[in-house]
Amino acid sequence: MNTQRIETLVDGVFAIAMTLLVLDVRISQGLSGKDLVSAIMRLWPQIAAYIVSFMVLAVYWIGHHNQYYWIKYTNRIFIWINVCFLMCIAFLPFSTSLLASYPDQVISVFVYGMNVILAGLALYLHWLYAIGPGKLTKNHIDTNLKQTTSWRILRGIGFYIIATCLSLISPKVSLALFAILPFFYMPLSSIDRFFKKRNT
Amino acid sequence: MNTQRIETLVDGVFAIAMTLLVLDVRISQGLSGKDLVSAIMRLWPQIAAYIVSFMVLAVYWIGHHNQYYWIKYTNRIFIWINVCFLMCIAFLPFSTSLLASYPDQVISVFVYGMNVILAGLALYLHWLYAIGPGKLTKNHIDTNLKQTTSWRILRGIGFYIIATCLSLISPKVSLALFAILPFFYMPLSSIDRFFKKRNT
Amino acid sequence: MNTQRIETLVDGVFAIAMTLLVLDVRISQGLSGKDLVSAIMRLWPQIAAYIVSFMVLAVYWIGHHNQYYWIKYTNRIFIWINVCFLMCIAFLPFSTSLLASYPDQVISVFVYGMNVILAGLALYLHWLYAIGPGKLTKNHIDTNLKQTTSWRILRGIGFYIIATCLSLISPKVSLALFAILPFFYMPLSSIDRFFKKRNT
Amino acid sequence: MNTQRIETLVDGVFAIAMTLLVLDVRISQGLSGKDLVSAIMRLWPQIAAYIVSFMVLAVYWIGHHNQYYWIKYTNRIFIWINVCFLMCIAFLPFSTSLLASYPDQVISVFVYGMNVILAGLALYLHWLYAIGPGKLTKNHIDTNLKQTTSWRILRGIGFYIIATCLSLISPKVSLALFAILPFFYMPLSSIDRFFKKRNT
Repeated sequence: MNTQRIETLVDGVFAIAMTLLVLDVRISQGLSGKDLVSAIMRLWPQIAAYIVSFMVLAVYWIGHHNQYYWIKYTNRIFIWINVCFLMCIAFLPFSTSLLASYPDQVISVFVYGMNVILAGLALYLHWLYAIGPGKLTKNHIDTNLKQTTSWRILRGIGFYIIATCLSLISPKVSLALFAILPFFYMPLSSIDRFFKKRNT
Repeated sequence: MNTQRIETLVDGVFAIAMTLLVLDVRISQGLSGKDLVSAIMRLWPQIAAYIVSFMVLAVYWIGHHNQYYWIKYTNRIFIWINVCFLMCIAFLPFSTSLLASYPDQVISVFVYGMNVILAGLALYLHWLYAIGPGKLTKNHIDTNLKQTTSWRILRGIGFYIIATCLSLISPKVSLALFAILPFFYMPLSSIDRFFKKRNT
Repeated sequence: MNTQRIETLVDGVFAIAMTLLVLDVRISQGLSGKDLVSAIMRLWPQIAAYIVSFMVLAVYWIGHHNQYYWIKYTNRIFIWINVCFLMCIAFLPFSTSLLASYPDQVISVFVYGMNVILAGLALYLHWLYAIGPGKLTKNHIDTNLKQTTSWRILRGIGFYIIATCLSLISPKVSLALFAILPFFYMPLSSIDRFFKKRNT
Repeated sequence: MNTQRIETLVDGVFAIAMTLLVLDVRISQGLSGKDLVSAIMRLWPQIAAYIVSFMVLAVYWIGHHNQYYWIKYTNRIFIWINVCFLMCIAFLPFSTSLLASYPDQVISVFVYGMNVILAGLALYLHWLYAIGPGKLTKNHIDTNLKQTTSWRILRGIGFYIIATCLSLISPKVSLALFAILPFFYMPLSSIDRFFKKRNT
């Protein structure tokens, strides 16, 4: 079976998870002028959490999206791997809300980190299954590409494991690491030449 | 008329229903460190309900999705069957919220069970109409496939009827049954060889 | 320009509006067994409003969907007509919530009725523009079809105008009329033979 | 890589942002007949904000949509520009809610204006990158079109900068300007002849 509908479902869940993040940025009614300004200032953890989680979701969306450059079929097991992945993605608005409300607590950093790590593991499994036992790609896949993609996901997971563990020492350090990770996934990298290869 | 837009609408409703489930997992503001940990621990019925309902929605989404491997046309009556199906699907966030708030009450197990059963009946009707009076499939459909699919849906409905009735004896048993059902739909089964047949 | 993306946007707004309706069906926390049952019983106006609005949205979605059987192009003006239509559709969760909270007040019936009427007018304009000045259909359109579709929309609007006005006498009569209207749009009717014509 | 999935994600975020706007229009429970009418009357800032923001979102959606008439490929950098654009779009329900709650405060007009301006800048960057360093268009693009589109976006941004600055003198003037801007983007204009050109 082809992958169109699972992609539509995934895009839908991502779009909603991204947009629900904003429901956590909220201001109370009936404030006077001065109080309003300071209330908006005090929203910075919510806004920071909004931006960071939006970017985390974007990293995962792009990772998922890129895999479908090669994945052309689905089967029942593969759809269930996708469901597990989506379960982690759709849970992120809660973790984000928790983190924004309690940015200095180890437990909230831990929950957030675990959520992101589980999503990463699901995405890793997604790739391994598709190129391995599932045989869901159209053509033979370059071994080099297989490894580059796997490493790229594993590196991110490793990074989050370290960042989450550091919360035992200082939650602030974890938050800073959560915030900078997406930037590592933004520049063009070795993986992007594979897309170009097939285009030419 | 072709089925593309009804599929888009269905995927949208599923994606939103799945993501709205998380709105029920919520933590109050201004807790101290210790209280926060125990508040998160006390969220387990909400988190369990989130996972179970997510998987129930996944089972139905996959069931619906698979039917469109054969269904190629729609008509007015068929769209209205879809609307009834979606009405049950979009109602599930409420039933889930009720179940998570009152996991030990017969009435909440009953409402949840009824909701899932009605969705199953709509999906069964959807299949019966498409292969029967609606003639919405492209080719002749194997009688064996017709029956396998029908039985697969009916088995699930029967299972939920039993689980719901058992709530009169013990709501906990019902909940346990609700939780394990999706696992029966995960492995590859006799129905999957039909997909392979047409591919080759 | 082709119509694919405007259809995706419309389907998205409909899917979300349909699913948001359920947010209005809510139960308070911490009730005892007996109170819970009676609280669920007292939800009937919310549940009735959910079902009615879901069906109203379905009627409009099907109406919009069917028009795109003939409409093949879009332009700036046509997109803005769609935006006005969507503005009415996305507003319906509020009107529904108002109606469910105050089912016996003239004002809430009036707001709900106006909302549905405006959506109907936008859909009518949508059709008139597409077959008229916009020339957005692919082939010559049967004059008979033009009129059948126009009348079908106008009949619905007229029905809602009457139902809304009757709220001055009795809001209950209006509600009953709102509830039965969708059933008139369910059976196959004279308009459906046009779809069949082109298929053969 | 082709642009289909990024378009689906963008359409999803827009559809949800548009529909979430209505969550801010809310009425309290248990009002008597007269109080209800006056409570609905007092909703006008919320309803006005709903309409204005819906139209702002529509302007940006159409602007984004039109660019994809020429843009045919994506790459990693381009997707991240889209993510930044979506981050601004998904934030608008908050800014709208702030504006509706405090329509006479400079700070809320400022936050709203900044949000819209940032979205405009992201859309401008989106266009510049696609026609410039990204080379994401299919054919050679008319220099005239490049400039017309760029100016069209910059004019809107300039307009919003002026409107936002005017809030220091009078927030009401800013609001009025926010409300009328979308109307400038509604009529067919010089940019639309480029779409027609390619069709013939």
